[in-house]
Amino acid sequence: MNDATNDHPMHHGAPAHALERLVFFSDAVFAISITLLVIELKVPALPRSASDVEFLQALANLTPHFVGFLVSFFVIGAFWSGHHRAFDCARHWSPKLLMPNLFLLCSVAGMPFFTALVSEYYGKLVPSAAYCLWLFFVAICNLWNNMKAVSPPVAADDLDPEYAALIRRRGWAVILGTLTALAFCFVNPWLAQPALISMPLWRRLLEYLHRRGTLKTV
Amino acid sequence: MNDATNDHPMHHGAPAHALERLVFFSDAVFAISITLLVIELKVPALPRSASDVEFLQALANLTPHFVGFLVSFFVIGAFWSGHHRAFDCARHWSPKLLMPNLFLLCSVAGMPFFTALVSEYYGKLVPSAAYCLWLFFVAICNLWNNMKAVSPPVAADDLDPEYAALIRRRGWAVILGTLTALAFCFVNPWLAQPALISMPLWRRLLEYLHRRGTLKTV
Amino acid sequence: MNDATNDHPMHHGAPAHALERLVFFSDAVFAISITLLVIELKVPALPRSASDVEFLQALANLTPHFVGFLVSFFVIGAFWSGHHRAFDCARHWSPKLLMPNLFLLCSVAGMPFFTALVSEYYGKLVPSAAYCLWLFFVAICNLWNNMKAVSPPVAADDLDPEYAALIRRRGWAVILGTLTALAFCFVNPWLAQPALISMPLWRRLLEYLHRRGTLKTV
Amino acid sequence: MNDATNDHPMHHGAPAHALERLVFFSDAVFAISITLLVIELKVPALPRSASDVEFLQALANLTPHFVGFLVSFFVIGAFWSGHHRAFDCARHWSPKLLMPNLFLLCSVAGMPFFTALVSEYYGKLVPSAAYCLWLFFVAICNLWNNMKAVSPPVAADDLDPEYAALIRRRGWAVILGTLTALAFCFVNPWLAQPALISMPLWRRLLEYLHRRGTLKTV
Repeated sequence: MNDATNDHPMHHGAPAHALERLVFFSDAVFAISITLLVIELKVPALPRSASDVEFLQALANLTPHFVGFLVSFFVIGAFWSGHHRAFDCARHWSPKLLMPNLFLLCSVAGMPFFTALVSEYYGKLVPSAAYCLWLFFVAICNLWNNMKAVSPPVAADDLDPEYAALIRRRGWAVILGTLTALAFCFVNPWLAQPALISMPLWRRLLEYLHRRGTLKTV
Repeated sequence: MNDATNDHPMHHGAPAHALERLVFFSDAVFAISITLLVIELKVPALPRSASDVEFLQALANLTPHFVGFLVSFFVIGAFWSGHHRAFDCARHWSPKLLMPNLFLLCSVAGMPFFTALVSEYYGKLVPSAAYCLWLFFVAICNLWNNMKAVSPPVAADDLDPEYAALIRRRGWAVILGTLTALAFCFVNPWLAQPALISMPLWRRLLEYLHRRGTLKTV
Repeated sequence: MNDATNDHPMHHGAPAHALERLVFFSDAVFAISITLLVIELKVPALPRSASDVEFLQALANLTPHFVGFLVSFFVIGAFWSGHHRAFDCARHWSPKLLMPNLFLLCSVAGMPFFTALVSEYYGKLVPSAAYCLWLFFVAICNLWNNMKAVSPPVAADDLDPEYAALIRRRGWAVILGTLTALAFCFVNPWLAQPALISMPLWRRLLEYLHRRGTLKTV
Repeated sequence: MNDATNDHPMHHGAPAHALERLVFFSDAVFAISITLLVIELKVPALPRSASDVEFLQALANLTPHFVGFLVSFFVIGAFWSGHHRAFDCARHWSPKLLMPNLFLLCSVAGMPFFTALVSEYYGKLVPSAAYCLWLFFVAICNLWNNMKAVSPPVAADDLDPEYAALIRRRGWAVILGTLTALAFCFVNPWLAQPALISMPLWRRLLEYLHRRGTLKTV
């Protein structure tokens, strides 16, 4: 079978390959969701006679919204990079991709709401925990979808199994990172977003365990 | 004539094939519409001093908006999948595609409004019926457009007529599903959105009738 | 020189051809602008205890916003079709395309605002005239941009001059249609949007005059 | 090594080349950000009984928002053109592109907020300075990202070093232009946006110095 074509013979030569349309549609949803984050940054309401200091103060009050915007921007950007990395290995269309991919996009599309929630009530337990729980949901969908992309029948026939395993480990590291953020949240809600930085640490730990042979099954 | 080219000889080799641009434009409108659904999820207004229980209560009050977001996300996702499936069979550009496709996109673009309406007044007759009626309109446009995609002069010359008939039956199942939701709406508006789950049941019924030979004409 | 490549030799084989990126970027702006129209459809505010009749009345009050949404949707759709038709004839990248295309996209991006303005104050002179004037601006940019696409150095070398002239005449018909709407606006603002239907009439008139040989210069 | 493929051999023939997906994703974010600018143009609130003069006055009061919309539209358009120009020279995917490109997109995605801020408080020091500072940040990311695109290992192997230097000088001219706007801002905030017109002047100055041999290192 040729690479990058549909399995169904009558689809051969379709103007937009089924797989490319899926990737394209996903890119568009990621791009819209990441750009919609800015909508939650509201211009502060001040009288035109306000002094420079008052303007600076009003902008300073937006700090949690700015931090929320930046954190969610790079979090969605990281999920997009992961989708990019996994689907680089995909060659064959399969209807089995539809559901995990729609679930991932749905979870990503919900990010602007949870970002606005955590920014509006920075440092409060319930909003922070809701944000981390939703990120955990995104991470689950991410692992599910990326595993489909690097497994038969979707993956390239000559895909290095070692590379597929690497992508799965990356997916697990993201899940562990969101769980860490959720746990820190109950210690102190202010630590929830900073704790997302643990993701690369988990990735290195999993790589270390893998090299030592402890992670045979993942 | 070659596949995937314009019929007009001077268009041969256009940098963006007419058909691909239509598919691309449609994907973009689907993606934007599906992602804009989140805009209707508004962060609840609470004093910063609110307790955890009050925050949980405020989030719980958003349940109808969440359900509306999820239902409409997967409904638009299903229409996108149908568009994907039908246009996989298309090979030739025809100006006859423009109108049905614009009508479909217009109906899809209106979904965020009707989703917000039904979520804001969950369980009320008129909003629920308006939502179902609009979905019925989307389903009509969907059948019209997908039938154009799998019929001459647009369809691939070697398209299996059986596959084209399958796509038409799927379009009819979606229409019957939206009519079912509309009917349930008058029984109890709370049942309108759950009744959309009847779509796959209608599809199986039509497949069954087709195999028994009862549906010769569809 | 090959079709669909950059004129600059070092660009040959670029992963995203300059012309395709321009077309793609334009499609995305058209798609976003056409889908953002729905944001102006606001869910009416009613008490949950409102009766069915009150809900129907509230929806009926949205009629101007619905009409505005539909008219602008098909107007932007028509401009997108025109862009599609003209750029089907384009083969060579030229930096001369950048400015007319950005102006067209800027004018299209402004449509949601003017649509909201005319819908909010339906039947009032100034909002209707502002809408028609902005459409006139879109139509000017449209003609400017499409003429660049079907002229050297952008157009395909073998482009039928007759087809290029047809596209120019279509651009003029759109301009005449928006001027007609603007004129009707001063007679009665309610007639402004319906008067846009004159566009196909102008197109037929120009075609008729062209065939009779009266329009040698256009 | 072939042009336009991934460096990793197993990626050869991926349905969406890694580099194309990056370019595509960037185009989408640029397009969404540029189109979202219109959301800050709010329809003025007037009684329906308002006179034509009052309507004209209300529209006239929107002038700063209109100017802000237009300036930011063409500023983002210019950054998009620069991205287009630089990535026309790119042929090889490198993970080193991810971070500078995400930073550029993040800065571009923030533009609608700063545009709304400067438009709402036109002529005030802090909002104008914040706008110019953010533009300076965009310009830094722009230079960083475009330098990656025209340098090894990303650039085409046969890329004219002179052309790569030209793109770097353009990036520097944009930075100098935003610094000029920032400086004018402290003289008179009204001059901040008009001072952006200095960008082409800086470009010509850098070209002049380059031809005279003064700018050996850039």
